[in-house]
Parts: sequence; structure tokens; C-alpha cells
Amino acid sequence: MPAVKIGLLGCGTVGGGFVRLLEQHRERIAARTGADLTIGRILVRDEEKRRPGVDRSLLTTRAADVIENGADVVVELIGGTNPARGFIRDSLSNRKHVVTANKAVLAAAGGDLLDLAAVHGVQLRFEASVCGGIPIVRVIRQALAGDRIRAIRGIVNGTSNFVLTQMAEGSLDFAEALALAQERGFAEADPSLDVDGGDAAQKISILARLAFGDREQRWARCEGIREVTARDVCAASDRGAVIKLVASAREEGDHVVLAVGPELLSTRDALANIANETNAVTLTTECAGELLFSGPGAGSLPSAASVLADVIDIAGTWDVRYRGR
Amino acid sequence: MPAVKIGLLGCGTVGGGFVRLLEQHRERIAARTGADLTIGRILVRDEEKRRPGVDRSLLTTRAADVIENGADVVVELIGGTNPARGFIRDSLSNRKHVVTANKAVLAAAGGDLLDLAAVHGVQLRFEASVCGGIPIVRVIRQALAGDRIRAIRGIVNGTSNFVLTQMAEGSLDFAEALALAQERGFAEADPSLDVDGGDAAQKISILARLAFGDREQRWARCEGIREVTARDVCAASDRGAVIKLVASAREEGDHVVLAVGPELLSTRDALANIANETNAVTLTTECAGELLFSGPGAGSLPSAASVLADVIDIAGTWDVRYRGR
Repeated sequence: MPAVKIGLLGCGTVGGGFVRLLEQHRERIAARTGADLTIGRILVRDEEKRRPGVDRSLLTTRAADVIENGADVVVELIGGTNPARGFIRDSLSNRKHVVTANKAVLAAAGGDLLDLAAVHGVQLRFEASVCGGIPIVRVIRQALAGDRIRAIRGIVNGTSNFVLTQMAEGSLDFAEALALAQERGFAEADPSLDVDGGDAAQKISILARLAFGDREQRWARCEGIREVTARDVCAASDRGAVIKLVASAREEGDHVVLAVGPELLSTRDALANIANETNAVTLTTECAGELLFSGPGAGSLPSAASVLADVIDIAGTWDVRYRGR
Repeated sequence: MPAVKIGLLGCGTVGGGFVRLLEQHRERIAARTGADLTIGRILVRDEEKRRPGVDRSLLTTRAADVIENGADVVVELIGGTNPARGFIRDSLSNRKHVVTANKAVLAAAGGDLLDLAAVHGVQLRFEASVCGGIPIVRVIRQALAGDRIRAIRGIVNGTSNFVLTQMAEGSLDFAEALALAQERGFAEADPSLDVDGGDAAQKISILARLAFGDREQRWARCEGIREVTARDVCAASDRGAVIKLVASAREEGDHVVLAVGPELLSTRDALANIANETNAVTLTTECAGELLFSGPGAGSLPSAASVLADVIDIAGTWDVRYRGR
């Protein structure tokens, strides 16, 4: 059985969840795929911090220890554009497959990184970067295989959706609903990336590149939910409608039109019933018509499971290539 | 570029759609996967019937012409248990990969056929057999990779769901709603497999085998919607609820408990909002919690696109193996 060694960059919430999940499923994965997945080195900022279930002898504060020392697959979970972009570039250039959950780096440099992966004959996978536990990247790849995507629409920011749901159902105003989201752990101390639409914009941009290729992306609108008032939400409800932060992408001639902003949806709209921190994406395709996928958009375990599924996919393909040599 | 030759068994609604879809996407598939997909021979009952877009010189009435003459992948779209089961066995024994949309043969003999595929080192794929255009088979495989499925629940029979939706929203009785379904082409002349729960039972049994393996399947209940009256539907609506035909599967000790039957669902249930001929499946998993997938459950184009996606997947893997030899 070929051993597949995983180098891990980052060991926070998702990284720690990934280590424990892999430990738990390792034998089952080996039985199903014929690949024995092991963790090589793990990059952390602070080697002294307590990390339950993580072998301390694997920790290092030097990225090169993770990337250069015999890893087959590098899993990048540190987030943010820099230094993650450089680490991913180094890994791909060293002919390591890369799995990342990092939407910021993909939105900023996804095209270049995918090109670099192709040049070096390795894979770059990113299921967990958009809508955590929903396998939307895989579904788009499948839908693209034998069908053609016309449009994507989604609720891809859980924090905004939680705030809007609480404003509608709990009669809270924006500030109260946001404070509740922070209390429940659904919003960062600085929630601007979520409530100003930036997070949703990064995600729809990644999905659009996947669905529509390298065509130029033009923004029709990019707004968050800060301007939505309790009165707007009530007025919508009185008309039998709801306000949701909708991200969308569609082909228009030779370019792709993207939009993020609050929309008034009839309760018959598939996205109208998506409540609280749940995410959902609809694909309109030529053959299948409208498909809807919903589930947890974030969280340690859903994201870790998506990362692990990507690693297993690579191990399966890699295994085939390996045996063929 | 390796040529991948497809033998086609059956050229009805889905088969004809598949031929046209492949023709339409052939160049794009070649560019993306490096595999040139071509149709070899096509089994039909009547060579004289008019089939727009289908090359008549490929037609044959002998299955052996399709299976034995150089096909790499056999696509089975004739439906029913026999002679489909024999054709699939012959194909696998001849080391042909098989893609099928046939739920009856999978429910009756899926385990044996998967074993036979494994013995001969080929693949048996069946995305289109359950919920036509929804990639639920692929999603379950993914969810299984890095996560663990606890339960499956779904609306997997479009005819029954159309009838129940029309009874609730159009105030029709069962017979009127069924007649409307037949008029719109959502129900067969003999609708018993749909309205008596047999079709849903076959589908949930296939999904349960995929999710829970070869464990013994025990039926808690298998009922259709014939006994549901207009009065039941009204009473549900008065209580803010809906009646849906729900198919479910969950682990219980060392076996799997299956059920199909009408259930009273609160309107907050994710399945309550699935209207008319749409299908939906929820997966409850250890890591990701509840995931919902909905879309068209049948139809020529959605099913043809799912079949094509399976063929492309096989061509991709096969290509890798082939180049490795």
C-alpha cells in the first residue's frame, strides 16, 4: 500500500479538526482507497500552544520543513493572502499537490495558481474554500462535465444570513442581530468582510471562475447588509417576501457578470427558506435546469471533512498514476 | 489523444438525448479530459424507427454487436431487470466499464454486479439511476470519503410529489391529481410503481447500499400515496403542515432500517418545500450535519447529462491507467 504523506500548513480550528478526523478515519480510508495517509510536518506559529490530539514532535515554525521534506500533498489552512500565496507557489513548484481552504488567496490569485499546478503536473484542490461542508466545487465540476452552467446564485455568507434571519424572525435590529451572531461565534470581532459583502464576493468569484473559466469578470454591484433596516425587513415580510444577501454570476456575451447585494425574494424562491448560518447555492444548467445544494457554510468539522475528501481524491488518482509507473 | 468507444444499449428518450448531448459537447470534453468519446454500436429493438440525430449505420438488434465489438464503456439505458441484468453481466465479464440509469436492476442485483465489476477490474457507475439530474451518488461517495453518513431522507419519486403538491395547492383529489400528472407526462399509463411506493423503495435501497454498504436492509414500512385523501391534505394544511412521500434509511445496530411512506412534515422541514416533480435528498452526516440536494428527478436531458458525466469520469480515470501501461 503506497503511503501518502501530508504536510500541513496551519493547525488552528480547521487544521486541528483535520488532524483528528484523519486519525479517526485512517484505516477506513486505507481499506477503501488503498492509500495510507499520514501527517508529515505541521507548520504552526507557536510550538508551545496546547493542541489536543496533535503529536508535538511534528510541529515546526519553518514552512520549508513542511513543503520540502517528503510531503506528497500540502494542505494549506493558514488563510489570508500572504504568506499563504508564497507557500502554495513553493509547494506547487516543488511538485506537491495542494489542498487549500483559503478563499482569499484563490480570489486574488486562483487563476495563476491553477496554471502553475498544471505546469508542474500536480493538482490544486479547494472544496472547503467555498461553502465549507457543501461539495459545491465538485458538483460544478460534475455539472460542467456533461452539461453547461448558465447561472449561479447563492447565499454564501453565513454571518449575513444569520443576521438577516434574526432581524426577520426575532424582530432584532441590525446591531442587535450582529451582536447575537458574535455571541454565538458566527461573526468575527471585526465583521466587516462578512456584512459588507467582501466574503461573498470572493466566494462567487471563485465559483464563477470554476464555472465560466478565465473570462473577464465584471461587477454589476457589490453591497453588504449594513444599510438593511428593521423597517425594510418588516416591509418585506408584510409583502410575503424576505430580504437575503444574494451572490450571483452569469454569462453575458464574452464576459461574466457578478453581483452581491441584498435582494427581495418571494417565499417561493428556493433561497428564501435558507435560515440562519446555513449556506445554499443554486445552479441553472442547460440540461438539468435548477439544482439546489444547501448545508453548513463554515465550521471546523464540515470544512475539515471537505479538505479530507480532497486529499483522498488526490491520493486515489495519485495512487493510480503511481502504480502505473 | 486516446479514443474511448462507447457501446449503447437502448436508444429511447434518455439514449437519444445522450447521443445528441455527446455530439454537442464532444470537442469540449476532448479539450478538458484528453479523451475523444465516440459511439460504437447502438442496440435498438426496431432499426426502422425514426431517431433524429442518430447515425442509422450504428444501429443493431444484437446486444453482442454492442458489447463484444471494441467498446471500452457500455452504457445501458434499456431499463427493467431482464434482459438488462444479463447484458450488464456480459459487459463486465468482457472487461467493459458500465454506466447504467437502471434502478430496477441495481435494486435487484446491485451488490452482485458491483462485485463482478471489481473482479474484472472495471467500473460500474449509476448516477442517473437515482434522482436523474441530482448528482447524489457522487455526493454520497464524497461524503463517505472524509465523513460518515448517519441517515438519508428524501423525496425521490417525482410523480407522487407532483400528485401531493397538486392535492395541496390545487385542491384536487387523488384521482384528479394523478390524471393531471399523466396529462403532463409525469406519470406512466400504469402509475402503480410510482404511487404505491415501489419506485421510491428501489431508489432508497440503492442509496442505502452506497452509504451503508452490504449490511442487511430491513423494511420498517413501504407504503405509497393511494390512501392519502383530500381531507388528509386539508387537515395537514390547517395545522401548518404538508404530507410528503418520504423515503428514508438509517443505521440501527448492524443493519439498516428503510422506510417509504406518507409523512406529515412541518413547513420548516427542508423537504416540505419541495414542490411538484422536483426531487430532494437530505444527508445527515457526522461532520457536515444536514446537507440538502434538490433538482429534477427525471427527464431525458437531466438523466442524459448524468450518464455523460459518469462516462467522462471513467474516461478520465481510464485514460490515466491507459497511459500508465
